[in-house]
Amino acid sequence: MEKLSIVKIGGNVIEDANALNTFLKLFSKLEGKKILVHGGGKRATHIASKLGIESKMVNGRRITDADTLEVITMVYGGLVNKNIVAKLQGLNVDAIGLTGADINSIYSEKRPVKEIDFGYVGDVKTVAHKSINKLIEADFTPVFCAITHDGNGQLLNTNADTIASELAIGLSKLYHVELYYCFEKNGVLKSVEDENSVIEYMDYGTYEILKHQGTFHDGMLPKLDNSFHAIESGVSRVFIGNPTVISNKEQKFTTLYL
Amino acid sequence: MEKLSIVKIGGNVIEDANALNTFLKLFSKLEGKKILVHGGGKRATHIASKLGIESKMVNGRRITDADTLEVITMVYGGLVNKNIVAKLQGLNVDAIGLTGADINSIYSEKRPVKEIDFGYVGDVKTVAHKSINKLIEADFTPVFCAITHDGNGQLLNTNADTIASELAIGLSKLYHVELYYCFEKNGVLKSVEDENSVIEYMDYGTYEILKHQGTFHDGMLPKLDNSFHAIESGVSRVFIGNPTVISNKEQKFTTLYL
Repeated sequence: MEKLSIVKIGGNVIEDANALNTFLKLFSKLEGKKILVHGGGKRATHIASKLGIESKMVNGRRITDADTLEVITMVYGGLVNKNIVAKLQGLNVDAIGLTGADINSIYSEKRPVKEIDFGYVGDVKTVAHKSINKLIEADFTPVFCAITHDGNGQLLNTNADTIASELAIGLSKLYHVELYYCFEKNGVLKSVEDENSVIEYMDYGTYEILKHQGTFHDGMLPKLDNSFHAIESGVSRVFIGNPTVISNKEQKFTTLYL
Repeated sequence: MEKLSIVKIGGNVIEDANALNTFLKLFSKLEGKKILVHGGGKRATHIASKLGIESKMVNGRRITDADTLEVITMVYGGLVNKNIVAKLQGLNVDAIGLTGADINSIYSEKRPVKEIDFGYVGDVKTVAHKSINKLIEADFTPVFCAITHDGNGQLLNTNADTIASELAIGLSKLYHVELYYCFEKNGVLKSVEDENSVIEYMDYGTYEILKHQGTFHDGMLPKLDNSFHAIESGVSRVFIGNPTVISNKEQKFTTLYL
């Protein structure tokens, strides 16, 4: 099977214009078929606050009410996504910006209300890998933001890490998929204070042991769970590191495998 | 050649949630291959003012400075475009939302500074009809907002009527294109006070005569100029009327021809 790289960049890259430009140059040089997935960073919070929309938190978790969803749609789907697409075009990457609503690419269900009503948050149910592949086969490079839809006209806020892993799983039916999570650290750290404590290789067994030892902090756990779910579901390999991981394999980074 | 309908809707339809839903239902029933083009309406002005960004006018014309372009990218490219896409998916139309940057579909040049510096405003130079046709051939329905790009990473604000006519001209190389301009009137009026004074058929000669008689008001002139430019450049027919013109051919509307 042909190789497909799926690269997810985090908010810290998007926030910093220079970091974003540097990353997009690396991404433009990444050979073969590829997909970019991005979150929204702090821009949404900043614009929401300017518009007088308060971030509502319950038990430390953000609630997406109707006003917040509007801001997310503006910032993720418009401002961030379309500027990335324009910049990639300037780097000769034939990019196309998408939400999960476009070509019905990612169908999700509004999270059921239990103890907490998260509002307009979607849990991914189906990735339309055949439709997305029509774009890839046409030599376009999809750029996904962290928005999906319920198929009945409702957009839904969805975790970007999950979108990346679900796209990777869906497209692993057609490609040899390599999934990259790029963030501010050099990889998964054994000690969060020590940048040099990168765990270079980790299989699921090692992950389980280290997890029960309390090695990983709260932000890393869902990323690792997403990653191993992807690997167990057909994705060839997952890499976690800083944005240069997509090009420079000389520095340290984390490789996850079954 | 196969028929392709290109439908442009104006700000008044977008502003009114019921009017938009009614229109999208009609659009979903329009048979054959089709493209939707939308402006942004007053939402951008409203959100700009909430964000403390003043609309700058010179000689009665709006200037797109960097802040205004950000709002336009958020509102046209994100909020309006992605909600239309999600609603069309709910109506079983396999929509895909685009700016001119996506798949490099509409390349434009920043308007040269003469007496007035319009800022980040683009004049359309090239429509990538072959790339757009890859989406159409894949049975996707493109939904364009009023944003283009300069090919070097810069998004540009561009008149939605012009985008519709340039798309129509570009795609007339591959299709029998019918272009619809939907707005708040029933058609081109002989007397702007009389809703029933719709000019039902108008060729270019008649247009020139009526124009010199001062029949048309300022908002209508560029729409008619765009229309006749399109017809002279290969577009089969242009219809101007209220949104029901795309389905209900019993009421009065304006048909333009060479």
